[in-house]
Amino acid sequence: MDERFQISLMLDYYGELLTDKQLNIMNLYYNDDLSLSEISEITSTSRQAIFDILKRCLKLLRQYDSKLKLVEKNNIILEQKKIVMDSLKELKTNINNEKNLDIINKITETISQI
Amino acid sequence: MDERFQISLMLDYYGELLTDKQLNIMNLYYNDDLSLSEISEITSTSRQAIFDILKRCLKLLRQYDSKLKLVEKNNIILEQKKIVMDSLKELKTNINNEKNLDIINKITETISQI
Repeated sequence: MDERFQISLMLDYYGELLTDKQLNIMNLYYNDDLSLSEISEITSTSRQAIFDILKRCLKLLRQYDSKLKLVEKNNIILEQKKIVMDSLKELKTNINNEKNLDIINKITETISQI
Repeated sequence: MDERFQISLMLDYYGELLTDKQLNIMNLYYNDDLSLSEISEITSTSRQAIFDILKRCLKLLRQYDSKLKLVEKNNIILEQKKIVMDSLKELKTNINNEKNLDIINKITETISQI
């Protein structure tokens, strides 16, 4: 997985465990793709301090993820969802009974919310 | 939800964020249902220290859960799984085509792993 994307996912899962300032700086760097200098200017914080915060937060996110493994668990769920969605699509092409199609649509809708 | 059960769930989700000693004491109290005195004896730790650790860990687990909300998220997934499983069961009773039944069984098996 692309590193930036993986860090962005970790921010989704564990971002709430950071302070507001840490989370803001991590989002500016990893989600909004701003440079250290730009973040430094926006947050009125030295470039070196931004660098230290990014490094420290990345370490924290990795520690949380090594323990809770939410990124990995979510990837497994996504794969399982895909298998189910593909099977439902196949099933749908084989069925023309209106009532059964309604049930399949209900299942598809519920799965998409997981 | 029963409080002890809820704490046991939080231990499943966030236990890894505690130290080994903290996790062990929490498990002895909330999962194995031992008394403070029994845990004190097993771990060679004073009853007061056990009490303090339990109190502090409970606060930690609640802090993690207020931020990550994994218990709530998991409950929602469980409810959605139940809806899907019930619908699959209904669908199965309406269908007698072997190939479609195979697909339904595959979906059921995959959902049960989520």
